[in-house]
Amino acid sequence: MANPLTPDVLVDPVVLTRTLVDIESVSRGEKDIADCVEDVLRQAPHLRTERYGNTVMARTELGRAQRVVLAGHLDTVPINDNFPSTVVDDLIYGCGASDMKSGVALALHLAATLPAPGYDVTYLFYEAEEIESEFNGLRLVSQAHPEWLRADFALLLEPTYGVVEAGCQGTLSARIHLRGRRAHVARAWRGVNAIHAAGEVLHRLADYRPRTVTIDGCTYREGLNAVRIAGGVAGNVVPDECAVDVNLRFAPDRSEGQALDHLREVFAGFDVAVTDSAPGALPGLDAAPAREFLAAVGAEPAAKLGWTDVARFAALGIPALNYGPGDPALAHAPDEHVEIGRIRDGAATLHRWLATYE
Amino acid sequence: MANPLTPDVLVDPVVLTRTLVDIESVSRGEKDIADCVEDVLRQAPHLRTERYGNTVMARTELGRAQRVVLAGHLDTVPINDNFPSTVVDDLIYGCGASDMKSGVALALHLAATLPAPGYDVTYLFYEAEEIESEFNGLRLVSQAHPEWLRADFALLLEPTYGVVEAGCQGTLSARIHLRGRRAHVARAWRGVNAIHAAGEVLHRLADYRPRTVTIDGCTYREGLNAVRIAGGVAGNVVPDECAVDVNLRFAPDRSEGQALDHLREVFAGFDVAVTDSAPGALPGLDAAPAREFLAAVGAEPAAKLGWTDVARFAALGIPALNYGPGDPALAHAPDEHVEIGRIRDGAATLHRWLATYE
Repeated sequence: MANPLTPDVLVDPVVLTRTLVDIESVSRGEKDIADCVEDVLRQAPHLRTERYGNTVMARTELGRAQRVVLAGHLDTVPINDNFPSTVVDDLIYGCGASDMKSGVALALHLAATLPAPGYDVTYLFYEAEEIESEFNGLRLVSQAHPEWLRADFALLLEPTYGVVEAGCQGTLSARIHLRGRRAHVARAWRGVNAIHAAGEVLHRLADYRPRTVTIDGCTYREGLNAVRIAGGVAGNVVPDECAVDVNLRFAPDRSEGQALDHLREVFAGFDVAVTDSAPGALPGLDAAPAREFLAAVGAEPAAKLGWTDVARFAALGIPALNYGPGDPALAHAPDEHVEIGRIRDGAATLHRWLATYE
Repeated sequence: MANPLTPDVLVDPVVLTRTLVDIESVSRGEKDIADCVEDVLRQAPHLRTERYGNTVMARTELGRAQRVVLAGHLDTVPINDNFPSTVVDDLIYGCGASDMKSGVALALHLAATLPAPGYDVTYLFYEAEEIESEFNGLRLVSQAHPEWLRADFALLLEPTYGVVEAGCQGTLSARIHLRGRRAHVARAWRGVNAIHAAGEVLHRLADYRPRTVTIDGCTYREGLNAVRIAGGVAGNVVPDECAVDVNLRFAPDRSEGQALDHLREVFAGFDVAVTDSAPGALPGLDAAPAREFLAAVGAEPAAKLGWTDVARFAALGIPALNYGPGDPALAHAPDEHVEIGRIRDGAATLHRWLATYE
């Protein structure tokens, strides 16, 4: 296909947002969009471009004292009657409009139009953020090409509605397994009902009072929830198994290990098996490019409550923040949309930040 | 196919059991076995035979003062590496050996070999007892040909291991629906967790103390169990729905309506929707043929705890008992088998009972 990301499109981050939304890129189907993005970047003489899977990296090599990463994922959740894009007044509707093609548009616009930024910049457009972590392009690159990520600061253009969101909470998922003994319900006293045994687990969850923690002025609210419960054999059988899947979102003052200790303490006496875990990230507001970025935005940061890939940068020792024009509350929604004004504001802010030293 | 139920086979209830096991008859596949049974019964000049679907009815019309029904279902649960039959020492192994082809063999043996019993006898061999009640042959006959069931007493040859089991408990299944409000787990305080809300339901189940009720010397133990629980949307979502399926087995001194009142009382404050219900049956030991049958067995009856089709007879006002050579604990098991000695004992008992007035 002809690449819709023409020079005319690339100069306008609003038009570019809409054009990106109109390239379908549900997770595991990012080849077309990655091809288009790679093609654009390879045509820019000031960038050195590489590709790994459907992740594309391009960077300036200007010999600046500091390097920053601008990163965004190319994939979207499945289309939900919201493709292609439509425009109503000052809103662009469509799958990925908020999460996060408007963010990707800001980075791609800068990559194509800002040949000499004040920092060296690494642009990273990666695959498979919306699905299981094993496919995540940022994770894959951190293993196969860690040098692509080397930087003094990273900005992730996830939807934050124009607010700087600092750090992120960690996430710990675990399965609590209840066991019993099967019996026919007509002779229930011969069995032990594993579903009944889950009552105490749910009781502790209902009674749990999550912490609120303030770090560097950012307030993190923790949470512990059952996200799934399943048990039962047949309508006439006392069930011998029940599983409760729980998820703990923890403030970044806890390590993964401390979070697990806490979970085991809450569910003392039960069989708790970790199924997934990812560390949080401290706000990381001290790095010079972070402070300069905050100055360009001109507003106080807030705590990021969801888990995002900033934690992958934090794990590599790179301070990272979230900042994007989309509304996080609209991510994954059928009526997902982005405000055109916020795209323009975001582009102006990033330009102010990166062009300062030009 | 040639009918394997030859006169040589019919005279020996043990050989007949094995021959019946070797005619595959998983529920909804009873045509072959019903054809064979119908053929045998039509050849007996002392019987009047009729068929409805794969249910076969044959009756003597001797003008006796009282009529009894001997009933058994022709179907089995799915084969589970236990077809055809095998014999090890004094055990016949095979799908349906206990539940209930050994019982069917007793009735079919009598039908073929006892031309002038002391009561008029209605033999009923019916389809689809092991699956959803809508297919149950006894239920279908009770609607289409209620006159086939008219009798003073009914004996159901379900496996009881040679014990007379009287009455049966009722069963009531219901779904308790918990509702909440979805939210991302990172912002859990915006949601209401429906799984957590199920904790109170499980708590009441765990605390429930079932009644034990003695009626006519038969002791019924009730039971209330969660048989299934399911809830959850995704690993990062506070779930807005959870459903707990519960089953109450109730002693036959409660009606279905009283059982439901009781269930609603236990789960007061929750949304309880009935999904299935069947009445129990009182022991019914007062009818003359019942007393004479108990005398022929020579042992005290016990309470039937599972639900059986005796309740269908009870609902028609016909006292009914369970009595069969199979071991109920082996029903539906891969190693299902029946003891040859118990088949012979059962045949002798029934002969003693029915031949008394010959």
